[in-house]
Amino acid sequence: MINVGIIGYGYWGPNLVRNFNDTDGINVAWAADIDENKLKLVKSRYPSTEVSKNPDEVIKSSNVDAIAIATPVSTHFDLALRALQAGKHVLVEKPMAATSEQCEQLIDEADKRKLILMVDHTFPYTGAVTKIKELIDENHLGEIYYFDSVRVNLGLFQHDVNVIWDLAVHDFSILDFLFDEKPTGVSATGIAHINDQPENVAYITLFFASNIIAHIHVNWLSPVKVRKTLIGGSKRMLVYDDLQPAEKIKIYDKGVSLANDESNIYEMKVGYRIGDMWAPRFDSTEALKKLVYHFIECINANEVPITDSHSGLSIVRIMEAASQSLLKNGAPQEC
Amino acid sequence: MINVGIIGYGYWGPNLVRNFNDTDGINVAWAADIDENKLKLVKSRYPSTEVSKNPDEVIKSSNVDAIAIATPVSTHFDLALRALQAGKHVLVEKPMAATSEQCEQLIDEADKRKLILMVDHTFPYTGAVTKIKELIDENHLGEIYYFDSVRVNLGLFQHDVNVIWDLAVHDFSILDFLFDEKPTGVSATGIAHINDQPENVAYITLFFASNIIAHIHVNWLSPVKVRKTLIGGSKRMLVYDDLQPAEKIKIYDKGVSLANDESNIYEMKVGYRIGDMWAPRFDSTEALKKLVYHFIECINANEVPITDSHSGLSIVRIMEAASQSLLKNGAPQEC
Amino acid sequence: MINVGIIGYGYWGPNLVRNFNDTDGINVAWAADIDENKLKLVKSRYPSTEVSKNPDEVIKSSNVDAIAIATPVSTHFDLALRALQAGKHVLVEKPMAATSEQCEQLIDEADKRKLILMVDHTFPYTGAVTKIKELIDENHLGEIYYFDSVRVNLGLFQHDVNVIWDLAVHDFSILDFLFDEKPTGVSATGIAHINDQPENVAYITLFFASNIIAHIHVNWLSPVKVRKTLIGGSKRMLVYDDLQPAEKIKIYDKGVSLANDESNIYEMKVGYRIGDMWAPRFDSTEALKKLVYHFIECINANEVPITDSHSGLSIVRIMEAASQSLLKNGAPQEC
Amino acid sequence: MINVGIIGYGYWGPNLVRNFNDTDGINVAWAADIDENKLKLVKSRYPSTEVSKNPDEVIKSSNVDAIAIATPVSTHFDLALRALQAGKHVLVEKPMAATSEQCEQLIDEADKRKLILMVDHTFPYTGAVTKIKELIDENHLGEIYYFDSVRVNLGLFQHDVNVIWDLAVHDFSILDFLFDEKPTGVSATGIAHINDQPENVAYITLFFASNIIAHIHVNWLSPVKVRKTLIGGSKRMLVYDDLQPAEKIKIYDKGVSLANDESNIYEMKVGYRIGDMWAPRFDSTEALKKLVYHFIECINANEVPITDSHSGLSIVRIMEAASQSLLKNGAPQEC
Repeated sequence: MINVGIIGYGYWGPNLVRNFNDTDGINVAWAADIDENKLKLVKSRYPSTEVSKNPDEVIKSSNVDAIAIATPVSTHFDLALRALQAGKHVLVEKPMAATSEQCEQLIDEADKRKLILMVDHTFPYTGAVTKIKELIDENHLGEIYYFDSVRVNLGLFQHDVNVIWDLAVHDFSILDFLFDEKPTGVSATGIAHINDQPENVAYITLFFASNIIAHIHVNWLSPVKVRKTLIGGSKRMLVYDDLQPAEKIKIYDKGVSLANDESNIYEMKVGYRIGDMWAPRFDSTEALKKLVYHFIECINANEVPITDSHSGLSIVRIMEAASQSLLKNGAPQEC
Repeated sequence: MINVGIIGYGYWGPNLVRNFNDTDGINVAWAADIDENKLKLVKSRYPSTEVSKNPDEVIKSSNVDAIAIATPVSTHFDLALRALQAGKHVLVEKPMAATSEQCEQLIDEADKRKLILMVDHTFPYTGAVTKIKELIDENHLGEIYYFDSVRVNLGLFQHDVNVIWDLAVHDFSILDFLFDEKPTGVSATGIAHINDQPENVAYITLFFASNIIAHIHVNWLSPVKVRKTLIGGSKRMLVYDDLQPAEKIKIYDKGVSLANDESNIYEMKVGYRIGDMWAPRFDSTEALKKLVYHFIECINANEVPITDSHSGLSIVRIMEAASQSLLKNGAPQEC
Repeated sequence: MINVGIIGYGYWGPNLVRNFNDTDGINVAWAADIDENKLKLVKSRYPSTEVSKNPDEVIKSSNVDAIAIATPVSTHFDLALRALQAGKHVLVEKPMAATSEQCEQLIDEADKRKLILMVDHTFPYTGAVTKIKELIDENHLGEIYYFDSVRVNLGLFQHDVNVIWDLAVHDFSILDFLFDEKPTGVSATGIAHINDQPENVAYITLFFASNIIAHIHVNWLSPVKVRKTLIGGSKRMLVYDDLQPAEKIKIYDKGVSLANDESNIYEMKVGYRIGDMWAPRFDSTEALKKLVYHFIECINANEVPITDSHSGLSIVRIMEAASQSLLKNGAPQEC
Repeated sequence: MINVGIIGYGYWGPNLVRNFNDTDGINVAWAADIDENKLKLVKSRYPSTEVSKNPDEVIKSSNVDAIAIATPVSTHFDLALRALQAGKHVLVEKPMAATSEQCEQLIDEADKRKLILMVDHTFPYTGAVTKIKELIDENHLGEIYYFDSVRVNLGLFQHDVNVIWDLAVHDFSILDFLFDEKPTGVSATGIAHINDQPENVAYITLFFASNIIAHIHVNWLSPVKVRKTLIGGSKRMLVYDDLQPAEKIKIYDKGVSLANDESNIYEMKVGYRIGDMWAPRFDSTEALKKLVYHFIECINANEVPITDSHSGLSIVRIMEAASQSLLKNGAPQEC
């Protein structure tokens, strides 16, 4: 039995606790929040869980094996560091920390103490993204040409982070999961339309050593909600629309076919192939349930999580570089 | 009666000739094409039109008042210049010419001779874009925040120009028509996936002196066809989906409303307003019919066309700057 | 404070209890279910609620003012009758009872004792249907011509009732709520494709004394889920698509306009009017929350519920007539 | 070379003539119309075609082998009969004639003279419907359970025929093509909302000796255009949406699976199977082009057309029975 302490019972914390509770082999022993009302809510729902306004009481409890952190980004580093130093495994909400230096320090601390440090990037645990990885790995799409994601809606303005850290972070974690290579550079543009608020629109292009280009469009001020990704390959192309209740993934047997037409140099050499469309069925288990189960498995078997601290760091680096590029009107930055 | 000579009867030429023929006050006197079969086609459809393989025969004919040019981009400058020098008004297919220098030279020539020089950018003549301009001009959207366009499909690869010159050109002409200001800079990224072919994917951000940001996504290798533009304003937001048979334009009464909450500095100050949606009806006359009529009106009344040579030049400058930025991985360029 | 006893904690019961609990002025004092595991679930969620396997213990408890019945249709009559005889107000799941005779007997019992007898038809309490009633009552649609509903999906086969009693019941309650008149007759067709199972496809037409025609298509074996209603009027027409996350209701300014063209008897006299489309925003409170609140209000103020026993009876009569007609291949039946 | 004479150059005639002209082995020798302006239009487009205001001049011309009739329904019988009596093959616009008696008389006349008598029902010649027949014939769908079609829009009111004869006729011809069995009976309901006009809304159910039920919803007063057909089978189900530019046909690997659960009589015995979705690509040649080619092939090879006079008669019989049933509020009629 793994005893977990949760720190932060605001927006995401309750989802984590609910899934911990539904998973065999875990017990939510402690919960901390600075808001007393949140703690009352915990007590009414889970009478056997102990609560405290002081996170250190949870971190230092001998009755706790692992700490889950669901607090604002700016507090991730401090809390995670103290938890690791107290010898606890850590699951931290995305993004891993506010800077790449902080991420590196956490990695060092976890490595030194041989503790699991996992980041709560949820998408790689969805049935849809898992299916897409399968399709890519089994070469159904051929050589990958591009990844294009639109993630826009009339969303809550964050005060501490811009729209890249709030929304594009999901696409960076999906890219990190799907492809073996890391981006080599980034160009980003964007703007803050509301005074004293962070950027609410951003466009990010990632460059890779291979033929892939990735682009992400994020916007907190869109009249319509869109969650749509196009992935183009040399053999087939794919549309992943996360808002569709059914048929989230559609695979198109479409592409270009090159032909050398020596006889006529003026003739078009790029032909088209248009075939069937196909929407595969996939597992629809709640992603967070699988993530929580994976966390416990990694602790028990001492395995490296899918969304480990190194991928967490790599994503923070991309966001730092993208935010830099944005300030320079798209000037490319290494990452 | 205006006598028109058409040069180029390939893909677009027949549409021009059909619309010239349906318009009172115009006569298609001459047609030129290097392909004899195209000329036969002209003859079978319009027995009274004279044909020639030699464009100069058309340009120099004393029976011709105006020349319409529907040939590859690389030939626009030469043909338009000769037509202007022969004292003819000119309607040239978009883009106006292959370089901004060429555009400037054509403008000088037309100005010197007081001839109409109009560019065939079709979108400003559509009912949809005209309606959008009306909505913006009457301040229905409030201050404009962003213009975001996606124009992708499995399209024919062009050999001589990249996807920006082929597809984004439409969005640049729409922007030029809708907004009074010109962009101050551009950042573009993109890639050529097929060897020896021009870039087939591109992402372009335009910067403005005001609060506006514009972004255009063009792609010749998309599994699905998309023609969708979002325009966000401080009062309302708009979706223009050109592929919808009905309800191409939807206006959302949505936006942010700022509130100063002095009592609680931590409280979210950005609120949301969500109201009705509304799809206005608009004129559905074929855009090219209106464009052709406008060309004749401008000749007869000696007026400046909506899509005149100066807007044509400005669009070519943007495309030059965007293509430069693309080669530099998004490094911003003035335009 | 109204003390409620719930009978049946299967599929719908938990929704009722959750909404009772969230409503001020109600206390769920008792819960009954034949399944002990369901009762354990109640206890873990609502420790202060008393539970019993015997519904009569709940019905007869002096600590209970009202009974909510969420059991199979065949048991509605017995349980409701005993509850009324015990002097309790009753909220019964739709449909009210298995036959119109049973409904009539319940009405008599409730009237005699001056008790509230309300049927849990949920749709009239939704923001969408309330908005549609408003639009009709304020004559936005003009004279109503037709009501056409499609309610199909790959649904659970019911053993005891056919697809009319399971799905069309919703449309009958919407019709009863929207229009002042009752249908005069019904014609229904349908078929049972699975041996020993009730009809899984049905088409029902309702006739009215006025110009209205209503049609309902229900199907448990559809590959796609559809919840779409068209309402046509002389002034405007409406589409209500309950599966849309936004813009559930769209109002089209379309219609026919009659013109007497004396000069040309062969000329089409029916013209068309096509104008804007409009999607109004409406209240999105959970319908069941409003229904529960309405039940308590009716008890406290001794008012007639919107979905009272008389409308419940009228809906059962339509379903009896429709099931009769279905057996006779569409032969019309009075109702 | 087959010489064809066309009678009627109104709405549909020009489509026929254009396709005749594009087909090798056919020559449009003659055209007749009562409107002189239509004849001028023919002359301007096809200078070598002879024209006449008198249909008999065309019918009796020794230079004509076959007559195509594209005039109002009420004239079909007379014109077709005279054409057959003059020894000409006949292609007649749908529906074949105004009554089943007229159809029978035409069949007799054609049989006696061994002439081809074909009805211009277009849908069986579309790529989509051909693909659906293939899927059914190859047992991809299993045993067919139902055919459900919605064909509604804001359409032109016909003066001489109701909405069944105008729109449902297409579905009857599709059914006739797809299935080997003829319907045994029909129940129809509907209403005329506009004074002195035919019924503008109708709902038609067809009964079959087998397990199939077919239903068709037609409406001239719908705010939105719909052309959607569901076909349910024991193995798979299909959606055919004719308004989709791509993916008109979607096949769902969904269905019920029956299980005998002896141990628990209360347990649900009907299970569900939900798998992939698949959209096959198919031939997109214009249907009328294929129909015209088929007509000429049948003449040359003396073969029975797919949409022959017997299927034409059967469709008229269904429409007569449906119109009868409609007048009797759905009372079933043999057909």
